Amino acid sequence: MEMPTDESKTLPQPITMKGGDGPLSYAKNSCFQKGVVDATKGMIIQAIANKLDMEKLCSESSKTFRIADFGCSIGPNAFFSMENIIEAVEQKHHTNAGNFATSLEFQLFFNDHASNDFNTLFQSIPPSWPYFAAGVPGSFYGRLLPKSSIHIGHSSSALQWLSKVPKEVVDSSSPAYNKGSIYCTGIEKEVTKAFAAQFENDMETFLNARAEELVGGGLMVILVGGIPDGIALSQTAIGKFYEFFGTCLVDLTKKGLIREEKVNSFNLPLYFPSAKELKSLIERNGRFSMESIDEIIEQVKRAHTSLPSTQNYISHIRAGMEGLIKDHFGNEFVDEFFAHYAKKHVETRFVFAENAVDNTLIFMILKRI
Amino acid sequence: MEMPTDESKTLPQPITMKGGDGPLSYAKNSCFQKGVVDATKGMIIQAIANKLDMEKLCSESSKTFRIADFGCSIGPNAFFSMENIIEAVEQKHHTNAGNFATSLEFQLFFNDHASNDFNTLFQSIPPSWPYFAAGVPGSFYGRLLPKSSIHIGHSSSALQWLSKVPKEVVDSSSPAYNKGSIYCTGIEKEVTKAFAAQFENDMETFLNARAEELVGGGLMVILVGGIPDGIALSQTAIGKFYEFFGTCLVDLTKKGLIREEKVNSFNLPLYFPSAKELKSLIERNGRFSMESIDEIIEQVKRAHTSLPSTQNYISHIRAGMEGLIKDHFGNEFVDEFFAHYAKKHVETRFVFAENAVDNTLIFMILKRI
Repeated sequence: MEMPTDESKTLPQPITMKGGDGPLSYAKNSCFQKGVVDATKGMIIQAIANKLDMEKLCSESSKTFRIADFGCSIGPNAFFSMENIIEAVEQKHHTNAGNFATSLEFQLFFNDHASNDFNTLFQSIPPSWPYFAAGVPGSFYGRLLPKSSIHIGHSSSALQWLSKVPKEVVDSSSPAYNKGSIYCTGIEKEVTKAFAAQFENDMETFLNARAEELVGGGLMVILVGGIPDGIALSQTAIGKFYEFFGTCLVDLTKKGLIREEKVNSFNLPLYFPSAKELKSLIERNGRFSMESIDEIIEQVKRAHTSLPSTQNYISHIRAGMEGLIKDHFGNEFVDEFFAHYAKKHVETRFVFAENAVDNTLIFMILKRI
Repeated sequence: MEMPTDESKTLPQPITMKGGDGPLSYAKNSCFQKGVVDATKGMIIQAIANKLDMEKLCSESSKTFRIADFGCSIGPNAFFSMENIIEAVEQKHHTNAGNFATSLEFQLFFNDHASNDFNTLFQSIPPSWPYFAAGVPGSFYGRLLPKSSIHIGHSSSALQWLSKVPKEVVDSSSPAYNKGSIYCTGIEKEVTKAFAAQFENDMETFLNARAEELVGGGLMVILVGGIPDGIALSQTAIGKFYEFFGTCLVDLTKKGLIREEKVNSFNLPLYFPSAKELKSLIERNGRFSMESIDEIIEQVKRAHTSLPSTQNYISHIRAGMEGLIKDHFGNEFVDEFFAHYAKKHVETRFVFAENAVDNTLIFMILKRI
């Protein structure tokens, strides 16, 4: 069974992961993401060992190493990712400087929208964590940190979330109107073009902001939900999940619980790029060199199969999607919707991976030129 | 009428200001603090103009100016204080460098306990604020930020809160047992000694941590609740308030709503130093030079008289004290207690300043040696 991993990450303002630490919260329902963290650990360690120029980055006068996580959500994966990076930097530092290495101080910046539940994030920082942690509220599609202040930036499963739904796709008079669908299937040419253009704009904004914030030679470690080149999202496991999700909304219009126009004006602010698209975007931007790009498939699948029960599955979906549903349809509709979703899930025994193409996670190491 | 200003600021873990932005929250009940911010603005601008060595602090290579607020609570006063400091630094920067001054980037660190309501703080950051803001969770009685990373530190009405109640004062077998009182009156010698020793320890820890974090020549702007030299806290308006507050607890033991032992084991983790005590503490610590020390009285009084109604008054007290009451007596007791408090306040028309000595706010500028 394959499951979507990406809807449980950061979302455009003012939509964020469900806060707190109750049974439906993101903090308790992000086991898939942990799988991703583990799968990429080796790749991160190798990238830092090979690509990070410690002499250049850490002068004698400053022994502070600053790392920022863009789209951190509310943990605990944000902490695991940071620890992997720190471990890699420490290894590199000690290899370089040997036993005489003075110890580094790490300052970690956790970024997400101001509506993210930072209280939960802060309260779940591991006790006696030997690093300096700070929360940075705001959209990563904009500047968040001072010039040349960050040595390594990290963003995991966040950049497929757009800053907004392109307005053409919910405008019935536009050729890009996404009629009868709540997401970018990749089949309708004009719709796909509109989503792709929004993704390009957003990535350009993201890269320019990070280019200012990173020191020369600093690295960006990016994981983003993607699709294999030449495949439409609707053919993939994640696409099939959104398809199913959309039918649950339509069911409730039929029951008269929500108006049809309300569903027609709902689209997910998501775009899954191919590795090829990302490569050409980074090149065009020109402020980072592409040090490596990989597509992860198997590891993600393995992580997903660890899902223990239907209840956990529903909670996972809800943690990721509740914010979007609440924002568009109103708070009073949320419980009703997810009750219906759960019922239909059990009745149809919907399994995403059946006849679906595997999704990819695209793992990139960029270096600030 | 004189009112206590200090109990609405930061408190020892896990007690913090009441969060959210409901009618009882700190954010809506901190008008006194705003008075203090206004009163000290001129002093801050003057101190920065005279004491800050911009050439030393801002090299050509780094145009980032970092300011940290220790014990920020949930604003909006934290923002006003930061803006005053920034205004002063900008003035100094442009006076020094004239029209050729390249613009500074300001990074602001807002610190309070991890249990502080950072969500509310972050969501109330002024829209389009042209500064980089970050939240730093953790007790300021310990390291929070990397070495030599801060140019100006600020702490307002926070340091009179101790890291804990000294255990002797709630130990009936100790000569320092604070029998029949919930605070350090300044009358009982052994009790006062125990509180003073805790304050000394805490201040020493605070100064040592900040000494590491500040750059050489960096400034600490400190406002701390105090008392005039030779006066006991019980003679002051704030003392009389705690006295009254304590009688409300005793009333409820008489009604059988709480056990007497529970009240006997309750003390406020507060100590109000004199300017003389503070001076000798800073000297003994030796890592900062005392650039100035002033006692503010009148301005604070003026700020207090702006209090509009009984309801506002009660809300103000509750915002400051609710955390302590909840922590010691349990959540279920909170509403009951404040209902009784409000009733007694109205019945007795208790006015703090009657026959009371004015409290002081001690305003210090320290420079990292």
